[in-house]
Amino acid sequence: MDTRTYDIEGFHDELVAYGLIVPTGIKGAYGRGPVFEDILRRFDALVVREAAPDNAQELTFPPIVARRMIEELGYLDNFPQLAGSIHSFMGDDRQARQLSERVQAGQRWEDLLAPTDVMLTPAACYPVYPTFSGLLPDSGRLVTVMNWVFRHEPSDEPTRLQHFRMREYIRVGSPQEVQAWRDAWLERGLDLLRRLKLPVQSDLASDPFFGRAGRMMAASQVDQRLKFEILCPVISREKPTAICSFNWHQEHFTSTFGIRQRDGALAHTACLGFGLERVTLALIKTHGFDPADWPAQVRELLWP
Amino acid sequence: MDTRTYDIEGFHDELVAYGLIVPTGIKGAYGRGPVFEDILRRFDALVVREAAPDNAQELTFPPIVARRMIEELGYLDNFPQLAGSIHSFMGDDRQARQLSERVQAGQRWEDLLAPTDVMLTPAACYPVYPTFSGLLPDSGRLVTVMNWVFRHEPSDEPTRLQHFRMREYIRVGSPQEVQAWRDAWLERGLDLLRRLKLPVQSDLASDPFFGRAGRMMAASQVDQRLKFEILCPVISREKPTAICSFNWHQEHFTSTFGIRQRDGALAHTACLGFGLERVTLALIKTHGFDPADWPAQVRELLWP
Repeated sequence: MDTRTYDIEGFHDELVAYGLIVPTGIKGAYGRGPVFEDILRRFDALVVREAAPDNAQELTFPPIVARRMIEELGYLDNFPQLAGSIHSFMGDDRQARQLSERVQAGQRWEDLLAPTDVMLTPAACYPVYPTFSGLLPDSGRLVTVMNWVFRHEPSDEPTRLQHFRMREYIRVGSPQEVQAWRDAWLERGLDLLRRLKLPVQSDLASDPFFGRAGRMMAASQVDQRLKFEILCPVISREKPTAICSFNWHQEHFTSTFGIRQRDGALAHTACLGFGLERVTLALIKTHGFDPADWPAQVRELLWP
Repeated sequence: MDTRTYDIEGFHDELVAYGLIVPTGIKGAYGRGPVFEDILRRFDALVVREAAPDNAQELTFPPIVARRMIEELGYLDNFPQLAGSIHSFMGDDRQARQLSERVQAGQRWEDLLAPTDVMLTPAACYPVYPTFSGLLPDSGRLVTVMNWVFRHEPSDEPTRLQHFRMREYIRVGSPQEVQAWRDAWLERGLDLLRRLKLPVQSDLASDPFFGRAGRMMAASQVDQRLKFEILCPVISREKPTAICSFNWHQEHFTSTFGIRQRDGALAHTACLGFGLERVTLALIKTHGFDPADWPAQVRELLWP
């Protein structure tokens, strides 16, 4: 039985007191101290070691994506409230003086900017799909990425961040291959997190689709069993935090980018993502603020 | 004598052919393949090993900073053309439908967004300065960060990226301490890069201040010897690329954040930054597209 106490503000303050996080004055964008970062990187390395037999190709993208991709994929239909659009100043000397004056007078200045060709990456897997374009090799492909992901949901709750890192694996292939891969990884993920002695369980889940129409999208996603999450109590016993998610996109990405199997049929994709800051916070909440005191079995996995 | 040929488009295409970079359709935001990323991480680790005796504190920040900080520090007076401002949708169901319709009709939709509290980090050191606030310990402080940095200057030239990584060291202390530290690191940086057999040299430099007023700022910066760069030919023999920079800010940051020495006088700051993608590209240009063929001395330093 879980006899720990949960106190969001208290948890935040202890994280600060132990130097695990560093306040920045921005909601959901604190700095990470050296011990926090060491735990995060070691967990990421553990996932990569566990997945090594699968021979995923590792790609690294900057945390920005093409605006056109966000538009084409319907992200602004489904999650407009989370998107981060990047705007820059493209004016002349006169307009630059206006900008300076407005900033110094404490006035708003966003109308002096124009949208750039890029937006913040909303999920680490997004830049991967266009690289699959065309005909796939037999048995499809597997790619892994680690990247910063933006979600505009400012919060003082330590597990709800505006910008955080995901380690993702992205599988493209036939519907059967992709679904079997997703199912197998749900078990692998649970097993890995349980070896770290985290009190995790999996559940069906849905994405935070926007507004009234979004509620129907979410219900349909649950009906079709497209999304699973692994949950762990971090800031609440009753509402455990999602620390890992498994998404079967069917033809959502492959139809946009024309990704086909050898027989010409559209491929399917699925991805899984570990929320690296959230796993780090789950480990800290479960095992204590000083990793030197963590159970030997957990230390051996992370500090091999 | 440098007898290599320089051909920007050819260099880009060879990087793609060797799988070192992966086109994304965005200017200055290509993906990094596994070999490129391995070189980059190993160079970063080498810098960290070289600097280990200095006992810098390592902090990790997300690649976003407070909008207010950018405003207060005068970044929009000096470099408005480079800034990246993050805007999000904060409307209701009706406005969300409008947004969807505009996107689907290929119309502009930025006026349906509002500025968030955050902007993209313009230099990896920015989030560090507020953490120095108050009275400094004797002999000041030293912090290191590695982060993604945004500059709105879309380009097809492989060394000019919109989003790239800097490994920075940031020193705060008395004017004498800070200047001596900066001067010593200029020599250490040159020595380190020369052990990697890069044909580097250092030079006085200035920041890309905007517009007509900016030209005077840049001239004054050179007069005061505030900025040095280490340069290496990567895409041109005549215009070598800055791969490392050393900046003495005097009281620019400490006056904004009230950072004082023990005697109450304003402290000074300086920083140095290695442009990790640029060093990686300099190594590739100098030693070849396959690291297996690089000189033994270089390999021993990077793959110890």
